[in-house]
Amino acid sequence: MTEIRPLTSTDREAWLPLWHGYIEFYESEVSDEQTALTWNRLLDPQFPIHGAIATGDGGRAIGFVHWLTHAATWSATPYVYLEDLFVTPDTRGTGAGRALIAHVTQWAREHDAAKVYWLTQETNATARSLYDRVATRTGFVHYEIGPMP
Amino acid sequence: MTEIRPLTSTDREAWLPLWHGYIEFYESEVSDEQTALTWNRLLDPQFPIHGAIATGDGGRAIGFVHWLTHAATWSATPYVYLEDLFVTPDTRGTGAGRALIAHVTQWAREHDAAKVYWLTQETNATARSLYDRVATRTGFVHYEIGPMP
Amino acid sequence: MTEIRPLTSTDREAWLPLWHGYIEFYESEVSDEQTALTWNRLLDPQFPIHGAIATGDGGRAIGFVHWLTHAATWSATPYVYLEDLFVTPDTRGTGAGRALIAHVTQWAREHDAAKVYWLTQETNATARSLYDRVATRTGFVHYEIGPMP
Amino acid sequence: MTEIRPLTSTDREAWLPLWHGYIEFYESEVSDEQTALTWNRLLDPQFPIHGAIATGDGGRAIGFVHWLTHAATWSATPYVYLEDLFVTPDTRGTGAGRALIAHVTQWAREHDAAKVYWLTQETNATARSLYDRVATRTGFVHYEIGPMP
Repeated sequence: MTEIRPLTSTDREAWLPLWHGYIEFYESEVSDEQTALTWNRLLDPQFPIHGAIATGDGGRAIGFVHWLTHAATWSATPYVYLEDLFVTPDTRGTGAGRALIAHVTQWAREHDAAKVYWLTQETNATARSLYDRVATRTGFVHYEIGPMP
Repeated sequence: MTEIRPLTSTDREAWLPLWHGYIEFYESEVSDEQTALTWNRLLDPQFPIHGAIATGDGGRAIGFVHWLTHAATWSATPYVYLEDLFVTPDTRGTGAGRALIAHVTQWAREHDAAKVYWLTQETNATARSLYDRVATRTGFVHYEIGPMP
Repeated sequence: MTEIRPLTSTDREAWLPLWHGYIEFYESEVSDEQTALTWNRLLDPQFPIHGAIATGDGGRAIGFVHWLTHAATWSATPYVYLEDLFVTPDTRGTGAGRALIAHVTQWAREHDAAKVYWLTQETNATARSLYDRVATRTGFVHYEIGPMP
Repeated sequence: MTEIRPLTSTDREAWLPLWHGYIEFYESEVSDEQTALTWNRLLDPQFPIHGAIATGDGGRAIGFVHWLTHAATWSATPYVYLEDLFVTPDTRGTGAGRALIAHVTQWAREHDAAKVYWLTQETNATARSLYDRVATRTGFVHYEIGPMP
């Protein structure tokens, strides 16, 4: 049975290997200093980045989601950017990802946000099979300049 | 000769038809109330949305760019989201779009941002022929849930 | 009968003479440009400055309050700074000031703020006779450097 | 010789006893959790609370200052609230307090702030003898409602 709840300070040990698993999935690297900063931001009630954790059988942590709000030029109310979503490989397909997205959508409604959006790799067929069911693919693609020195 | 400068209160008359042209390009609609709110946000030095205008021959306004900053989980420093970019159809190909993006990139460097990013329609070949030269297409695609009631 | 409600866009005509009365009380001046900016900030749901208006008999506007939130080093949750409070001279003593402060205090509770605070001139005996009944005078006094050029 | 510099992550051991000394001066208490949160906020480049440390002979830490920015209804540009200032009792009168205030004032100028302000206990004659020389006592006194449960 999957349950979703906001991250709290006692979740650090459970969150850390999930965060590392997520970064490895993207074949990327994040410094320990950045990980500590991100954790602190997630826990700070005054910082606009928020997080939730998913637990499965026996209360085992199986996934997380991070999101943030920002103002927009097309809307009086904020947008919610779901920046990070991860579910452990062995529990994919159990509804945890869907429940994590639903948690963010519910939070967005309660905080008068205009929409929830996210980005995902075009080649990530597993994730997209879920996203195509719960959200709208807008046809927009992503460009960036950086990282800046 | 294209010049780029930050939006100021005297630019309202020049910016308004460009903004409407941009919205029409997306076959979308924005209320007058939203337009007024967005303009006020662009001008407010304390609001995290910023804008610049491009002028061409004779000082005629030919384009604009709007951008905003938000915190991120992967970076100590902020990301810059280039939300809106527009150049009048008759002046495309003159370098105004490139100069507007360069203005935002320069602003981002001066404000210690980690990167600049934007989204564009996959089918917008004109815009993408520019973006493919000045930025990296990351392979990420965009999903959204909303608008929320 | 005094009623307090959040400022909305239709209150501009009622709010403006109250705002001018307030500025005159402090023998100060504010440019029309600043007044427009402050009004826009009060109305923008994404700007951290908020306002409410008091109406008396017949719905006549008789006062206002403006407040803002900011983070603090002594608290996980924000402080609410009640920056401006005004009641028309002819309706002082009718409970409007007390009701405006109560409105902010209620807002602060609903938004998980740690406290509400404000500053007032030591010589303003009328205001202080109210404040001494509804709040704590902390014994702190105010210093400033500025305005800066 | 007093030197002032922005707080960095390596200053934690030096800052901690100064912070505790400051809290004891106000006969107050702050939880370890709050201290950790405040430290993290001071170090986070995206959080609007900032800090600097003063060092004296041999590089010994002798004081600190914390400040934050917030928007205001009277100004297009932000106010800087100097929330915490502390100099060790044995080094008072050596110019460290004055230098810490000057550091904040300089930061405020560089960041286009409208003014710097702070609050101090009316009975704190030592501090006020400095403040009366470097700032304007406005005649405003401080009221608060809280702490809220």
